[in-house]
Amino acid sequence: MSSINLDNPVVRSYIVYSAILALKLLFISILTALARMTRNVFANPEDAVLTKGKVKFDDQVVERKRRAHLNDLENIPAFWVLGALYVTTGPAVAWAQLLFRAFTLGRILHTIVYAIIPLPQPARVIAFGVPFAINIYIGVQVILHYATAL
Amino acid sequence: MSSINLDNPVVRSYIVYSAILALKLLFISILTALARMTRNVFANPEDAVLTKGKVKFDDQVVERKRRAHLNDLENIPAFWVLGALYVTTGPAVAWAQLLFRAFTLGRILHTIVYAIIPLPQPARVIAFGVPFAINIYIGVQVILHYATAL
Amino acid sequence: MSSINLDNPVVRSYIVYSAILALKLLFISILTALARMTRNVFANPEDAVLTKGKVKFDDQVVERKRRAHLNDLENIPAFWVLGALYVTTGPAVAWAQLLFRAFTLGRILHTIVYAIIPLPQPARVIAFGVPFAINIYIGVQVILHYATAL
Repeated sequence: MSSINLDNPVVRSYIVYSAILALKLLFISILTALARMTRNVFANPEDAVLTKGKVKFDDQVVERKRRAHLNDLENIPAFWVLGALYVTTGPAVAWAQLLFRAFTLGRILHTIVYAIIPLPQPARVIAFGVPFAINIYIGVQVILHYATAL
Repeated sequence: MSSINLDNPVVRSYIVYSAILALKLLFISILTALARMTRNVFANPEDAVLTKGKVKFDDQVVERKRRAHLNDLENIPAFWVLGALYVTTGPAVAWAQLLFRAFTLGRILHTIVYAIIPLPQPARVIAFGVPFAINIYIGVQVILHYATAL
Repeated sequence: MSSINLDNPVVRSYIVYSAILALKLLFISILTALARMTRNVFANPEDAVLTKGKVKFDDQVVERKRRAHLNDLENIPAFWVLGALYVTTGPAVAWAQLLFRAFTLGRILHTIVYAIIPLPQPARVIAFGVPFAINIYIGVQVILHYATAL
């Protein structure tokens, strides 16, 4: 059984990329808040008072950032748990690092092409699909490794 | 204090069911994508270009899958963290395994009766309620066990 | 390297506040369900049958609770992972406990001023901002500590 401790490079790689993904996810809150302020559209009447803004739920710039945010919530927490569980299966160091890096890079590109500089497809399909496939792959590896515990 | 290592059957049970729940959650993304393609309705203009689809936010088939997805996000990550913390309290093996299995089964049924074959209530209330009650129960057990750390 | 075990007071503090945050997050499901029932508005036709309710997606009382819920999902899972990773960096006990307590208190206040007793701004900006800043701070600390693993 592999050693799960903080000297293990797979553990350290998991930790640093998980933290980067968390900051990236949180960053979209700032993007959305800036878009709300510059466009003066809000989700609550109490938010709109000061700047005499509008309560509006279909501003396309704001909603695009919100969709990018929700897509992060649908994918990044799954990585946080699957990545941690995958580390316990003792994967090869370089392979696990490659997966963690590709996942993180994919999700950063996803935010860029969805919420910052909207690009034509298939930019977002690819930026979504690579991390999605990694999540599925590491999830299947975890289940196969622990299948006797079902 | 119980031993938290990868030979502990409670740990292994937590790992395998957490991974199954993650794959189940990710699976709804595929359901939603398929529904969007077969119904030719999308959330972004750039997604609709290729097939001359419509940008539409109230397609009832797509929105039902999206609600099932959001409900997963409201319940499964809470299980991931509460389940892991509960394992550290040293629960009885068979009891913890029963809770993890019931949670997982409930959430799978929830997806089926919400997003795949919509059934009359109380099908979804039950499929939601059992995992919800398990989350509350294990959360309370964790807090009682670590109450001196408040 | 700090000792990551269940006798470590930082670990115990992380565990108990993470569990409280999970119960708080789950509690909004109950708030939303109660609001749906008292106002007789639902998201699905099968939910509305029994009480002859309406399917409605713009009830302001229900939607406010749903926005509070989504905001929890955007912030609390990030804390669960960042908090756990931060513990591995060996922070000072009193400082880490202060951060975990302030995060938890902030998120509880956020729910109160958003979903229970809507208050004028800047009540919610503050209740959102303090936990958000804590998430960013601990995320940066984790990345700095493990930067060699990039």
